[in-house]
Amino acid sequence: MSSAEQIPEAVEGQPVTGRRTRGGADARRALRQKPTIVQNPYIVRKIPLVTVLDEEGLSIIERNADTILQEVGIEFRDEPEALELWKKAGADVKGTRIKFPRGLARSIIQKSAPKEYIQYARNPERNVQIGGNATVFAPVYGPPFVRDLDGGRRYATIADFQNFVKLAYMSPSIHHSGGTVCEPVDLPVNKRHLDMVYSHMKLSDKPFMGSVTAPERAEDTVEMAKILFGADFVAKNTVITSLINANSPMVWDGTMLGAMKVYARANQACITTPFILAGAMSPVTAAGTLAQVLAEVLAGAGTSQLYNPGAPVIFGVFASSISMQSGAPTFGTPEPTLVSLAAAQLARRLGIPFRTGGSLCGSKIADAQAAYESAQTLLPTLQAGTNFVLHGAGWLEGGLSAGYEKFIMDADQLGMMQTLARGIDLSENGQALDAIREVGPGSHFLGCSHTQANFETAFYRSNIADNNSFEQWEAEGSLDAAQRANKIFKRMLNEYEAPPLDPAVDEALQEYIARKKAAVPDSNV
Amino acid sequence: MSSAEQIPEAVEGQPVTGRRTRGGADARRALRQKPTIVQNPYIVRKIPLVTVLDEEGLSIIERNADTILQEVGIEFRDEPEALELWKKAGADVKGTRIKFPRGLARSIIQKSAPKEYIQYARNPERNVQIGGNATVFAPVYGPPFVRDLDGGRRYATIADFQNFVKLAYMSPSIHHSGGTVCEPVDLPVNKRHLDMVYSHMKLSDKPFMGSVTAPERAEDTVEMAKILFGADFVAKNTVITSLINANSPMVWDGTMLGAMKVYARANQACITTPFILAGAMSPVTAAGTLAQVLAEVLAGAGTSQLYNPGAPVIFGVFASSISMQSGAPTFGTPEPTLVSLAAAQLARRLGIPFRTGGSLCGSKIADAQAAYESAQTLLPTLQAGTNFVLHGAGWLEGGLSAGYEKFIMDADQLGMMQTLARGIDLSENGQALDAIREVGPGSHFLGCSHTQANFETAFYRSNIADNNSFEQWEAEGSLDAAQRANKIFKRMLNEYEAPPLDPAVDEALQEYIARKKAAVPDSNV
Repeated sequence: MSSAEQIPEAVEGQPVTGRRTRGGADARRALRQKPTIVQNPYIVRKIPLVTVLDEEGLSIIERNADTILQEVGIEFRDEPEALELWKKAGADVKGTRIKFPRGLARSIIQKSAPKEYIQYARNPERNVQIGGNATVFAPVYGPPFVRDLDGGRRYATIADFQNFVKLAYMSPSIHHSGGTVCEPVDLPVNKRHLDMVYSHMKLSDKPFMGSVTAPERAEDTVEMAKILFGADFVAKNTVITSLINANSPMVWDGTMLGAMKVYARANQACITTPFILAGAMSPVTAAGTLAQVLAEVLAGAGTSQLYNPGAPVIFGVFASSISMQSGAPTFGTPEPTLVSLAAAQLARRLGIPFRTGGSLCGSKIADAQAAYESAQTLLPTLQAGTNFVLHGAGWLEGGLSAGYEKFIMDADQLGMMQTLARGIDLSENGQALDAIREVGPGSHFLGCSHTQANFETAFYRSNIADNNSFEQWEAEGSLDAAQRANKIFKRMLNEYEAPPLDPAVDEALQEYIARKKAAVPDSNV
Repeated sequence: MSSAEQIPEAVEGQPVTGRRTRGGADARRALRQKPTIVQNPYIVRKIPLVTVLDEEGLSIIERNADTILQEVGIEFRDEPEALELWKKAGADVKGTRIKFPRGLARSIIQKSAPKEYIQYARNPERNVQIGGNATVFAPVYGPPFVRDLDGGRRYATIADFQNFVKLAYMSPSIHHSGGTVCEPVDLPVNKRHLDMVYSHMKLSDKPFMGSVTAPERAEDTVEMAKILFGADFVAKNTVITSLINANSPMVWDGTMLGAMKVYARANQACITTPFILAGAMSPVTAAGTLAQVLAEVLAGAGTSQLYNPGAPVIFGVFASSISMQSGAPTFGTPEPTLVSLAAAQLARRLGIPFRTGGSLCGSKIADAQAAYESAQTLLPTLQAGTNFVLHGAGWLEGGLSAGYEKFIMDADQLGMMQTLARGIDLSENGQALDAIREVGPGSHFLGCSHTQANFETAFYRSNIADNNSFEQWEAEGSLDAAQRANKIFKRMLNEYEAPPLDPAVDEALQEYIARKKAAVPDSNV
């Protein structure tokens, strides 16, 4: 089941990554012929968009969002500057409550927010387009726990964090290194962001996300990006995309807004995301949830444009429901699918990139529940035309745990989505009429020249599925998918090699981190 | 996790099934307040169709199908009458090879084949529409093996067959009892169809499929249907839908055509299905596969109309790929998804109902592989607008095995598809503006009046997903989804009660079976 699309043998002389300049160490590394990484570029979707609402339905949601903004308003807490900016822009501000004249936030966004942007990576071949018909997959974000078959569930450490960065780097259909791939709880809260951001910069050459847990941590991210990319480059280009969650319902808080302000003013991108467990943070109905989500995004994304007109901002929605019995969040059920598909339509009408979905599940382990729920989230995520997909791989237990085996399984599914998005090849080779003429009735296509010519690229090749006979599967130990994934992630970590990084840059980064760590005592807030 | 949509407690006086007339035994049964079955009607899809080809792409495939029919032709083996009928209709017949003038088969189908039809069940509330915007789910078809966690994999018996009929009967989102839910290999091949058809008739009140392994077995099915429904009713209405597979590439054989002839002339429905493992039975490319599939369906469905103009016929395609390494069939990969979505478009243009997909997988067990692959097959199956979905629940191991736990898991997913197909409720209650006004910023919706009013119907409730906390899940034994499903199928079989059947009808059926069994010796061909 090893696959040419996954981790092929090295081609002699081919660099480990696509960096265009490299020194003696790189050349030596290439010569050693260690496994190299074949990477897929971000997805350019060629299949039609999947929608759920017609023009009338979308207008109803938009009208209701305006009603919410106008009548109920949105709370902006602990961020006086945002209140001031909205007042100047024409909103009705009383205390921390902002009420918006109909259409105000939308017009502010549409005046300056880019429809799409490039997030630059330190390896230019890993640059990604965010928006338009592009889809970018990033790994899981936020879990305080990790799980694998060997160690079970345990608190995440910086070693786990680095492992997931490495796995994302080596996964051909993960286009983005993500952010808090797990929460390294062995490091002090006020300093761990330095190690996290450094891990992305050092261990991967894919684009990454920044810290948002305090404005000064966002500033550290920007400063480190300036060291990595050069200050001039960062001033003119987007090199960080960060996750700014609303405190639904209808609250934006000072921490998130503070981080957004740092990033927006540094011309870096923010994903403004209502984090919705419908039934708790929003109404139990999809249409109600959508109106609230749109209102929250309009207020949040509008704020980013008031901070800095033109700063990239993404329409995000984290869509989930709760169990009406236990109150527990549920995933992969039909209602969030409908919310995600409709929200994508709303984002396109607003004219900014869209984020939702991923490989979400409520299961504690990488079992059938996890897989059903993840697949039922991921496929609609792609079909919706989602531009930035967080939680693409590794998510378990409602986001409380990052699973090593789950990561491998999900990454395989991301590869399938990449293939699906290409659609049907209608070239003459794709039509294959000559093959049908050659083979004729009652024969088979296995050996025909068309099959031979298309052998390598014919079908997506999973590295995790076992399609062998029952007898062979049994002879090989009757392994389930999780057990096979366990072997794969260990082999990947064993074969991992860091992409080359200019030693002077590396040193400067480490120096920055050491200085910042020394400046204040450790703290867990 | 028990669910009101699944197997609720009985309501006093409510009949076990929806039969409108019932005698003393039924009344007593109702009074005993045993669990009853809440059944969902067949799906009437309200979400938009998902497509992959535009007008130009569809025209290319249709043109190529005509080229295949005209230049290569289709083999019709061991069925001289079909050759004769096509000759009369204007085709070029040489030996067993039929070459069709462009457009001939299409025009024959479009002249008489119904766009949709009702398949009647013995309980009128279980009648299903096949075609249009309806989707009907049926269980797995054909596996010689069964599997559960207790007994592992073993040959299927008539007891297993009856179990799966019972489980399908009790599953609210399985609308159709199916056919060979597993192959009862403990019964002689030449007689087992009698027991299979009887099991559907006796143990379920949902519509069913007929035997196709020999024309005389199809005749037995029709005769038994006449006993169940009355000969007059069967003469005028469709009460059987049966599976007629092509012998791809480009062969229809005498056994299948013989069964088709029996059903078509009895005005019963056939699904003409190219059974495609792309790369073996068709080209490795989707466009090539689609052209061949369309050619085969045009020839097969056209034949049904020559046998009996107006007999219901379905455009079927079983879409799978093969591993280019091992030759093993693969499922849930992107290429069959594209084939299914495009084939649905072709069927709509042809103007007959469509069958594809289901919950297909290559996994030997009900693990994450099984679930990913099944979900990646099932969701596109629904989205394509598929009218008849075979293999909706229970399929394992490329169809070699019917899984008890897999059946329960899949049936849950079918329920989710049923909910998804309803789309977004845009009523005033769905819009929930008052709820948002009531709750306001920074609060929650758990206790608001809108949530309370919509509590019962708010979200799809899975009977298999565990969304509890990690700690609670662990305290309950750290079960995986398959272990939970194991408990559910046993509970269901334990609680099963047969739908009432007129004892005179039952006796007549048993008499027919006994007579037929006595007439010939057992045989395993």
